[in-house]
Amino acid sequence: MFFHVKQLQLDAKPDQPDPMYARRLQELLDGKFGEMTVMMSYLFQGWNSRGPQKYRDMLFDIGTEEIAHVEMLSIMISRLLDKAPIGDQEEAAKIPVLGAALGGSDSKDVIYAGMNPQHEIVSGQGAEAKDSMGVAWNGNFVTSSGNLLADFRWNLVAESQGNLQVSRLYERTGSTGVRKRLAFNLACDIMHQNQWQAAIEEVQADGLHEFQIPSPFPLDRVMLSQAYTF
Amino acid sequence: MFFHVKQLQLDAKPDQPDPMYARRLQELLDGKFGEMTVMMSYLFQGWNSRGPQKYRDMLFDIGTEEIAHVEMLSIMISRLLDKAPIGDQEEAAKIPVLGAALGGSDSKDVIYAGMNPQHEIVSGQGAEAKDSMGVAWNGNFVTSSGNLLADFRWNLVAESQGNLQVSRLYERTGSTGVRKRLAFNLACDIMHQNQWQAAIEEVQADGLHEFQIPSPFPLDRVMLSQAYTF
Amino acid sequence: MFFHVKQLQLDAKPDQPDPMYARRLQELLDGKFGEMTVMMSYLFQGWNSRGPQKYRDMLFDIGTEEIAHVEMLSIMISRLLDKAPIGDQEEAAKIPVLGAALGGSDSKDVIYAGMNPQHEIVSGQGAEAKDSMGVAWNGNFVTSSGNLLADFRWNLVAESQGNLQVSRLYERTGSTGVRKRLAFNLACDIMHQNQWQAAIEEVQADGLHEFQIPSPFPLDRVMLSQAYTF
Amino acid sequence: MFFHVKQLQLDAKPDQPDPMYARRLQELLDGKFGEMTVMMSYLFQGWNSRGPQKYRDMLFDIGTEEIAHVEMLSIMISRLLDKAPIGDQEEAAKIPVLGAALGGSDSKDVIYAGMNPQHEIVSGQGAEAKDSMGVAWNGNFVTSSGNLLADFRWNLVAESQGNLQVSRLYERTGSTGVRKRLAFNLACDIMHQNQWQAAIEEVQADGLHEFQIPSPFPLDRVMLSQAYTF
Amino acid sequence: MFFHVKQLQLDAKPDQPDPMYARRLQELLDGKFGEMTVMMSYLFQGWNSRGPQKYRDMLFDIGTEEIAHVEMLSIMISRLLDKAPIGDQEEAAKIPVLGAALGGSDSKDVIYAGMNPQHEIVSGQGAEAKDSMGVAWNGNFVTSSGNLLADFRWNLVAESQGNLQVSRLYERTGSTGVRKRLAFNLACDIMHQNQWQAAIEEVQADGLHEFQIPSPFPLDRVMLSQAYTF
Amino acid sequence: MFFHVKQLQLDAKPDQPDPMYARRLQELLDGKFGEMTVMMSYLFQGWNSRGPQKYRDMLFDIGTEEIAHVEMLSIMISRLLDKAPIGDQEEAAKIPVLGAALGGSDSKDVIYAGMNPQHEIVSGQGAEAKDSMGVAWNGNFVTSSGNLLADFRWNLVAESQGNLQVSRLYERTGSTGVRKRLAFNLACDIMHQNQWQAAIEEVQADGLHEFQIPSPFPLDRVMLSQAYTF
Repeated sequence: MFFHVKQLQLDAKPDQPDPMYARRLQELLDGKFGEMTVMMSYLFQGWNSRGPQKYRDMLFDIGTEEIAHVEMLSIMISRLLDKAPIGDQEEAAKIPVLGAALGGSDSKDVIYAGMNPQHEIVSGQGAEAKDSMGVAWNGNFVTSSGNLLADFRWNLVAESQGNLQVSRLYERTGSTGVRKRLAFNLACDIMHQNQWQAAIEEVQADGLHEFQIPSPFPLDRVMLSQAYTF
Repeated sequence: MFFHVKQLQLDAKPDQPDPMYARRLQELLDGKFGEMTVMMSYLFQGWNSRGPQKYRDMLFDIGTEEIAHVEMLSIMISRLLDKAPIGDQEEAAKIPVLGAALGGSDSKDVIYAGMNPQHEIVSGQGAEAKDSMGVAWNGNFVTSSGNLLADFRWNLVAESQGNLQVSRLYERTGSTGVRKRLAFNLACDIMHQNQWQAAIEEVQADGLHEFQIPSPFPLDRVMLSQAYTF
Repeated sequence: MFFHVKQLQLDAKPDQPDPMYARRLQELLDGKFGEMTVMMSYLFQGWNSRGPQKYRDMLFDIGTEEIAHVEMLSIMISRLLDKAPIGDQEEAAKIPVLGAALGGSDSKDVIYAGMNPQHEIVSGQGAEAKDSMGVAWNGNFVTSSGNLLADFRWNLVAESQGNLQVSRLYERTGSTGVRKRLAFNLACDIMHQNQWQAAIEEVQADGLHEFQIPSPFPLDRVMLSQAYTF
Repeated sequence: MFFHVKQLQLDAKPDQPDPMYARRLQELLDGKFGEMTVMMSYLFQGWNSRGPQKYRDMLFDIGTEEIAHVEMLSIMISRLLDKAPIGDQEEAAKIPVLGAALGGSDSKDVIYAGMNPQHEIVSGQGAEAKDSMGVAWNGNFVTSSGNLLADFRWNLVAESQGNLQVSRLYERTGSTGVRKRLAFNLACDIMHQNQWQAAIEEVQADGLHEFQIPSPFPLDRVMLSQAYTF
Repeated sequence: MFFHVKQLQLDAKPDQPDPMYARRLQELLDGKFGEMTVMMSYLFQGWNSRGPQKYRDMLFDIGTEEIAHVEMLSIMISRLLDKAPIGDQEEAAKIPVLGAALGGSDSKDVIYAGMNPQHEIVSGQGAEAKDSMGVAWNGNFVTSSGNLLADFRWNLVAESQGNLQVSRLYERTGSTGVRKRLAFNLACDIMHQNQWQAAIEEVQADGLHEFQIPSPFPLDRVMLSQAYTF
Repeated sequence: MFFHVKQLQLDAKPDQPDPMYARRLQELLDGKFGEMTVMMSYLFQGWNSRGPQKYRDMLFDIGTEEIAHVEMLSIMISRLLDKAPIGDQEEAAKIPVLGAALGGSDSKDVIYAGMNPQHEIVSGQGAEAKDSMGVAWNGNFVTSSGNLLADFRWNLVAESQGNLQVSRLYERTGSTGVRKRLAFNLACDIMHQNQWQAAIEEVQADGLHEFQIPSPFPLDRVMLSQAYTF
C-alpha cells in the first residue's frame, strides 16, 4: 500500500521557461535508463521476490523513493514549459496559445524548431511518459528476473548509466534551480550505486550466489572445454 | 513524496497455481486499460495540473490508490505462477525448473502450450510489465492533456473499459481467492466511475468548461455551417 | 464495400510551404487521438458489432466520413511540403532536392533543424502514417470492446481530445487555407461530440446498459462494501 | 471522399467457430504484409502523388478495394469467434462468458491455450488491429516514397508475400466458408501482382524511370569502379 | 562463423562535425530500408534457407558485405558527432560537454535545436540503432519468408528504396568525405539491384517458381472468376 | 570489414522437430538479453569507441563471436521447425503444409495451440528476429554510452541475465543435440562474464574511471549532503 504526501522531497524551480531543455529532461524521466525504469524495476523485483526479507525491504524502500524522483522530474518539466504562475493553466487551456512560453522574439523560431511539438499540442505544457525523441517508455525497460544477483547487477548498471546522463545534462543548463534539481539526483544515484554494490557483495557473502550466473549450476551441463578457451 | 506500507490493501491468495490465468491477468495489469495505465495517467494529470487544488488532490488520491492496485495484481500473478511457499524462489532460481507449478501430469502439455514462456524464462515466475500477449506496456497509453474535462472523460472511459475486462475474467476462474481479488477491483472501478462522472459534472458546474471541447472557443473560428449538418 | 470519389469533401490549399507545420499536422493525422485512430475505431466497432442496426449504421457512416478526413489531412501535409505545382513531384524525385520548399534563405537553417527529416529522405515530401515526433501510428490506438456504452464513451473522448489538439494548432498558423481546413475539422468534431453524447444517452434509454459498466452485472460478485467507501 | 455500401464484396461464413484460426487470420489482416498494410500504402501513395493521373487513379482504385478486404477479413474473424447468431453480442456482453464458442468439451482446454486471450477479454469476440501474435499493426509498415517505380516494386512484393501467407493458411482449414473467403483473396492478389507488374513496365516505358533507382542520376556521383566489381 | 578485419572497406572522413547530418544518416543506418535491415534480412534468409546452395552462398556473401556497410555508416556518424581526434572520447566522457562539436557560435543554437539529443545524452557522440527520428530499428523490418522468389523481389525493393534515400541525402551535404562515403553506397546498391534482378530471373529459369506467387498452386483453389475481372 | 566462413562454430542437430521449443529459443535469439542484443551492443560500443585500442579490440572480437552465436541459434530454430532433410524447404514452400513437423497425431492439437503461428505463416519454418512472444527485437536493447566502465558493467549484466535464461531453457528439453547447443552457450557466457569482470577491474586500474559513475566529476556539483543519508 502506498501513501502520497503533498510535498516534494526537494523543491526546485527553473529561472525561466526552456522548452528545449524540457524536451531533454524527458530522457531522464522516461528514457531507457530514466527514473521510471528504475522505479518500476525495483518495485517489480520486490513484488516478484521470494528471497530474504532484507532484500525485499531494500527494493521497496528505494523503489518508493524513485516514485518521488519521477514526481520531481515531471513537475520540473511542466515548469520549464510554463510561463504562467501556477494556477493559470486552466485559463491558458481555454484559448490554447503557447505564447510567451517561447521566450523573447529573437529565439522564438529556434525554440519552435527544437521543442517537442507534443508538449504544446498533446500534453498542454506538461510532461509525457516519453523520452527526449518522443518515443514512449515501455515495459521492456523493466528488468526483474527472479535472480537476486543478476538483478542487483542490473540495478547498479541502471544507476550508472542514468547518472552519466544526468551529469551530461547538468553541463547544458545555467539555471540555478535546474542545477539544484540535478545535483540532488547525482547525489542519490551515487548513493544507490554504493547500495547496490553492497547488495551484490552481500548476496554472495550470504552464500546465495557465486560470481558466475547461474550458480550453483551442475557443471557437467556446461561445455567446459569452451569456457576457458577463446 | 510517497510512502510504502508493507501490507496489501486486500490480501488474497489463489487456491492453486494457474499459469494460463496468470497470463490473462497481465492484461488487467499492463494492457491498454490496465491498472498501470490509470495509475500513471492520474499521476501525470496531477503533476501537470495548474487547475484548482480540489481536482489535483483527487488525482493524487486515486492515482496513489492505483499504485496499490498494481501491487496487488503483480503479487497475484506471481502467486499464480508459484507452486512453492513464499521464500523459496531463491532456491528454485538456483536450479531453474518450473516443475510442479505446471500442475498434474494430465494437463501439463496444455499449460506448456498456453502459458507465457517469458514467465518461465525471463521473469522467474514473476509478473511482467506486459499485456496478455506479451506486448510491453507503453507510455502512449497515458492520457494527460492539460484540459480537465477532456481528461476526466478519459478517466471515466478507462475505468469503464477496465472494469469490463475485469468482469470478463471473473467468469473464467473458479478460484475463491482470485474471485475475491477481482470482486474488490470491480467495486473500486464502479466507485471510480461514479467519482469521475461527478468530476465531469462539477468542472462544468464550476464554469470551467462547457460540454463541447474546447470551450469557450471563439465560434467564428469554427465552420459552423458544417457543425450541424451531416 | 467502399467507393472513392475523386474529389475532396472540402478543398483547401496552404498559402505557402511550411515543413515545420506539416510535421505538427502529422499529430492530427496519426497521433493517438488523430483521424486515423477514430476512422479505424469506428470501422472496427462496426465490423465487430452484433448490436442494433441503428448503431452499426452510425458507426459506418461516421467511420467512412473519417476516411475522408484522413485523406484531406494527408493531402494538406503533402501540400505544405511542396513548393512545386501539382504534377512535378515525379520530376523532383529524379534529382531529389528539397530545394526551395525550405523557404527563403534566412529561415532555411531553422526549417532544416525543425522539420521531420523523413519528410525529405523517406516519403518524398509526402505524409507519413506517423505522429509529430515520427512515431508510427499503431493498432493499439483502436478501441473496440464489443460493449456499446463503453465504446461510445471512448468515441466521445477521442473527439474531445482530438478537437483540443486541432484548436491548439489552429493558433499556430496564419495561413488562410490551413485555417479553413482546421475550421472544418473543428466543426465536424463538435458535431461528433454531440452525436456520441446522444448515443450514450440513447443506449441507456434503450435499456441496453445502465450507467455503471458492466451492467447488468450480478451484484453479489462485487465487493460492495468497497464500492462506496474511499 | 469515400462511400460505404452496407453489403460485402463477397459474403462467406465459417462452418463453425474456430478461435485458434481466428487468431491466425489476424496475420492476414494486420500483419506486416496484411490487408491493412496494402490498403494504407496504396492510399498514401495516392494522396502523396504528383505523378501522372493514370497512376493515381490506379492507386485509389486498388486502395479502396483493399478497404473492402479489410472489412471482409475483420467480419470473418468476428464470425469465427462467435457462436451466436448476429444480433446477440450485446446480450452476451452483458454477462460476458465466452461460453460455447470454445467448442465441445474435449477440445476446450486446448482452445483456451491456443487462442488470443484479448479476443475474449479486450475485443469482445471481435477482430483487433493486431497480427497473429498480438502485436499491433503500425504505420511503419506503410511504404510511400514519392518514387513511382520504387513504390510499384514494393506493391508487387506486398501482394507476393501476402498471397504466400494466404495460401499457407488455406491449407490449415477444412471450412468451406473460410476457404471460399481465401480463394477470393488468392484470386485478387494474383490479379494485383499482374497489375503492379504491368505498372512497373509501363512507368519505364513512359520514360519516367530506368531500371536502376534512382534514375536518371548523375553518374559522376556514383563510385562506378565499385558498381561492377564484387 | 564470422571474422572481423580491423580495417574499413572504404575509409572516409567528414570535413567537419555536423550533428544535424549525423541525425539524418541514422535513417540510412537503421531506418526501415537502412543497412541494418538488408544485413539482417539477407542473413536470416540464408540461415532459414533449404534452397539451392548457389542462392544461400549469394545471401551470405551480400549479407556479410552489409555488416561492413553498417560498420562504415556507424563510424561516419560517430565522426560527424566528434570534434576531437580519435582517442579522446574517454577524456571527453569524464567531463561531458558537447562543446565545440556544435560548431561556431552563430549556428550553435540551431544545431542544438536540430540535433538528436540522445547523441549527446545517451550515446556519448556515437551512433545509435535508431532512425532519423529516434525510433529504434526493429526485427519486423526483416523479411524472410522461405520463398526464394518472394524474398528476392523484396531484396530488390530494399535496395531500390534504400538507394533512393542515399541519393536524397547526397544532395544535402557539401562535405567531400561524406559524399565519398555515399558515392560508394550508391554504387553498391546499384550493383545489388542488378544482382537481385538476376536472381529473380534465374529462380524462374530454374523452374523453381512461376511469376505468380505462390506457384505452382492448385488452380482449383483460386476463385478464378475474380482473378481477371476488376 | 567482415568475412563469413560457411561452417558453424559448433554444429548440433535436434533429435526431432519441436515447434514449441523453437518458439522458446526465439527468446535467447532476439529477446531483450538475447544473442542479437549482445552482438549489436558490443559492435556499436566498438564503432563508437575513442578509448584505448585494447578495449576496442576486445569489443570487436567478442562482438564478432556473437554474430556466430546468432547464426547457430537461428539455424537451430529452423531445424526444430523442420521435419524435412535440408534441401527440401523449397519443395515444401510450393504447397505449404506444416505437415508432419507437428509430430504424432496425439500431440498435434497441442502443438498447434502452443507454437508461434508466424513460424508457419510468415517465415516458412524459419527463425524470426522476434522474442518468444512474437515481439520484434529492437534497437533500444542496445547499450552504448561512450563510457567504458558503464558499458562494461552493462555487458556483464547482459551475459548474466542471458545465461540465466539459457540455463532455464536447458532444463526444458531432453534432446541431446539441443542440450549440446546450449551447453556450448553456457560455457561461452561464463567465459564472457569472466572477461567483462576483468575489464571492469582493468579500466579502473588503468585510472580511467573510479567506482562511481561519472568520475572524476567535480564534487561541488553533487548535493553531497544527500549522497550519504537515506
